[in-house]
This record gives sequence, C-alpha cells and structure tokens, in this order.
Amino acid sequence: MKVAFQGEPGAYSEQAVFNYHGQVETLPCESFDAVFQAVNADACSSALIPIENSLAGSIHQNYDLLLRNNLHIVGEYFLRVRHCLIVNPGVDKTEIKKAISHPQALGQCAGYLQSHGIKAEQTYDTAGSVKQLKALGARDVAAIASRRAAELYEMEILEEGIEDNPENFTRFLAIQKEPVLPEGEAKTSIVFTLKNQPGALFKALSVFALRDIDLTKIESRPLQGKPWEYLFYVDFIGATHHETSRRALDHLAEYALMLRALGSYPRFKPQTNPS
Amino acid sequence: MKVAFQGEPGAYSEQAVFNYHGQVETLPCESFDAVFQAVNADACSSALIPIENSLAGSIHQNYDLLLRNNLHIVGEYFLRVRHCLIVNPGVDKTEIKKAISHPQALGQCAGYLQSHGIKAEQTYDTAGSVKQLKALGARDVAAIASRRAAELYEMEILEEGIEDNPENFTRFLAIQKEPVLPEGEAKTSIVFTLKNQPGALFKALSVFALRDIDLTKIESRPLQGKPWEYLFYVDFIGATHHETSRRALDHLAEYALMLRALGSYPRFKPQTNPS
Repeated sequence: MKVAFQGEPGAYSEQAVFNYHGQVETLPCESFDAVFQAVNADACSSALIPIENSLAGSIHQNYDLLLRNNLHIVGEYFLRVRHCLIVNPGVDKTEIKKAISHPQALGQCAGYLQSHGIKAEQTYDTAGSVKQLKALGARDVAAIASRRAAELYEMEILEEGIEDNPENFTRFLAIQKEPVLPEGEAKTSIVFTLKNQPGALFKALSVFALRDIDLTKIESRPLQGKPWEYLFYVDFIGATHHETSRRALDHLAEYALMLRALGSYPRFKPQTNPS
Repeated sequence: MKVAFQGEPGAYSEQAVFNYHGQVETLPCESFDAVFQAVNADACSSALIPIENSLAGSIHQNYDLLLRNNLHIVGEYFLRVRHCLIVNPGVDKTEIKKAISHPQALGQCAGYLQSHGIKAEQTYDTAGSVKQLKALGARDVAAIASRRAAELYEMEILEEGIEDNPENFTRFLAIQKEPVLPEGEAKTSIVFTLKNQPGALFKALSVFALRDIDLTKIESRPLQGKPWEYLFYVDFIGATHHETSRRALDHLAEYALMLRALGSYPRFKPQTNPS
C-alpha cells in the first residue's frame, strides 16, 4: 500500500497518512494536482488530501479537483495540528533566540513565541525548516513543525502543542479509484448547483429535512463572473446505497442543475483519534 | 485617512486598499490580530481584511476576530488576484531561468512557468521576493507578485495575469468602529448558532425564504470538540435598518442560541471593479 500526499516528507499531511493508515509507504507530491495525477496513474493505491481547516476554511482547489477527476472519497480523518518546538539534540530552551517556520505556523504560535521572548523568522515550509536547522547546527534557533518532521531528521522536541489556539484541526479525505460500501455510520459528500430562483436553496435543503437526514456541512461558493450562481457543498449522514439517502438525492436531482456524489464513507469518530 | 492591512508593503492586501479607497495612507500590520488592535486603538481610521478567496476558501480566523471585537463591517471589495512576472529593469523574458515567490503564488502560476521552462523557488512572501530580487540584481531571476510590489520597488513587469486560473478573487471587508447606514443595494453579514435539533438549519433559513430575502453566502463551520454544533455564516441582501431584514432577524433570534449582526454595507458591484 502506497499513499500519496501533498508536501515534503515530514509535512502535516504525511503525519495524517500515518495516523490514519498506520505504517504505509508514502508518496510526496509537489502539488494537489500531482496527487490526483498519481492516483489516476496508479502510482499509488490512494491519497489523503486536506479539504478544510478549522482556522483557514475549505480548500476549494481540492473540491475543484474532485469535480474534475473521477475518483471516490472512501474515508475521512481529522488531524489535530500540534506544532512542536524542535531543536538540535542537547539544546536547552533558554538558549533559543529565534524560531524558523512557515508564516502560518509562526502566526499560530505567535503568543507562545512572544511570551518566551523568541523572535520569528519565516521560511517556506514547516518540515523544510527542520531540515535547514539540522544542516545549520545552530543552538540558538528552533524550528516549528510536526512531530513527524522531528523524528525524520532525528531532532529533539522541546515542547509539543505550542499553538495558541488548540482548536486547530485539519479534515482530510481519503480518495481512490474504486468506491467503498461503508458499514456502520456513514457520511456522503455531494456538490450541486441550483437554478437561480428565489428560495431555491430552501427547497434543496427540504429534501433532507423532510427525511430527517442530518447535514454535517453546508457551504455556498460563488461562481466567479456569475454573480447569482453558486456551487453548494453538502455532507450528510447516510450512504448512497441506503434507501432514504437515495430518495433524497433523487428528489434533489429534480431541483439541481448539476449534482455529483463524491463518495460515501465511514464517519470519523473524533474520540478514536489516535493522534 | 489611514487604512490598516495585514502584510508587507506591496502585498495584495495593500493593492486592495488602494483599489477600494484610492490614494490613502496605509498601515502594514504583521498579523490579523494586529490589524484589529490597530483599529481598536485608533492607530488607523479603518482596516481592510480578506475574508474569503475563490480558490482557498473562507478565512475563519478573521470571522473569529470579528466575533471577538466590537467592530462593524462597512464595505466589501473583490480583488482579482493578478500575478505579475517582475524583473530588474531591462531584463528580457528569454533570460529568465528561475522564478521566486510565495509557494501559493508559484502554485497558481505552475502551468505558465512550466510552459516557459522557468524553474520555481519558494520564498516566504510575494512582495518580499521582489525586494530580494532588486537587492540581488540578478538577470536570470523573476519574482511573482502584485503590480503594486513592482511599482514600490521600481522594478519592471514583463507580463501581468500569469496565473493559470483567472477565477482567482479575494473578497475583502472594510471594518471600523462606527457602523454605516448603507443606501442603495445593501448586504448584511451575520453569524449564528442553533440548537442541536433535526431540521434546525432548515427552520433558520425559512426566516429568509418566507420573506423572499436572497442569501449570497451560507457556510457551516464545525465547533471543534462539539461534533454536532456549528457556527453558521450567512450574508443576505438587505440592511438591518430595513423593516423586512429586521423582522427576519427577529424571527431568526427565536431559533438561534447566539446571533450577531456583523454589519450592513453597500454591496460591491463587480462591473465597477477598478482593478
């Protein structure tokens, strides 16, 4: 089993692959496009892509790629993003004057750095900053990255979870060529567009409300250049091979201009989060 | 008039300030937190913050800051993100071997770079890469950044709009201490939470549908650690001082656990986009 992800070895996406699949072979890809290409070309058995973050929002680019490619969502995973303060072995916290990392990671640890009198310096990548620090060998510099990055470069973690807001989660989707028939509680992800009519969304949501189907996500995304047209992302509890869900989707198809089911998959239970 | 934005001089956010306000004084801030602090402390008259991007999604962090601070949305602006290929004066396109920029900008121009045989090298900032290129004086390197960054550092733009996907827009919100009473077509942005009951969202949306009020945005955001609870972001056409909108919000308050109106403001008309 070989799983593709976007980023450098040691990236948070790679950490998510190991948490979700256990010890598998990984295939680092430069871009999300390259991840989808790898799955299409059978260069890997599946991929794990980030779809939304609790602070940074939905990653529309990956919705676009899901719509353009004929792959299936077969699972989901929530990664708690825990930033680590990483140093060369033997360095003491009092020696650190500067932290290097990606601007987003530095921003998420700004309070911690300030209260410890540590200056921030931007680099282009979290895992890359650990690699850089190892090459540098400096004792007054720390890198901020994932536990996985520290382990990969045999560096020392002085503190884990230094982010100011602990509610920092990224939701990942597992995608592959073949769909699955999930057992137990399932989720289904769909994308649709509606006719530009008053109350169109209200009607569309009635197909779920009338059948007591719970929604776990709804999001409108404006179609640029078409001021009144939107893509809608909806996740609901149920699977396309369940009678009630199937009827709801048939009903929705009566209103929708375009409707795509991206996959039905087992719902991730946060309490079983191994991270 | 002095307007705060997040980023370095020459950042896309600064470009948005000039497009929206004309020639005003700007106040660059290190973080979104610092932008809100600047408005609260009267270090500026207002601020312009990005709230969503057509490829990268909603910026939840700025919704959090809107909820934590008692400021008002008074306007919106859509910036078409147009990446420029920027060089030292006199350099010809055939000389360029390498492009430097923020990874996101490089990713958005990947097709262009590949078709021109230009390698990509990551830096931490778009405007910063122009500054760096000027200091370097290299003739075989280009930076990718905004038109504003090129002008600021007196560098030359060889090509504008080199992004692969032209549908790249960022929506900005103007925020200040005092609310406005918008004339003409207005939009209102609200945030609310609902009781955890089947069909709760459907009921909540009925307050708009029953009054023929058009929604221009709806988004659910899971509250982490509370698997069935959500924040909802809704934008609708209308202003809180209009009778119909006021009644709809009164009605919504009957269902909502929490309801905050973040501001009513003139709707931005894309066709008047000065960029």
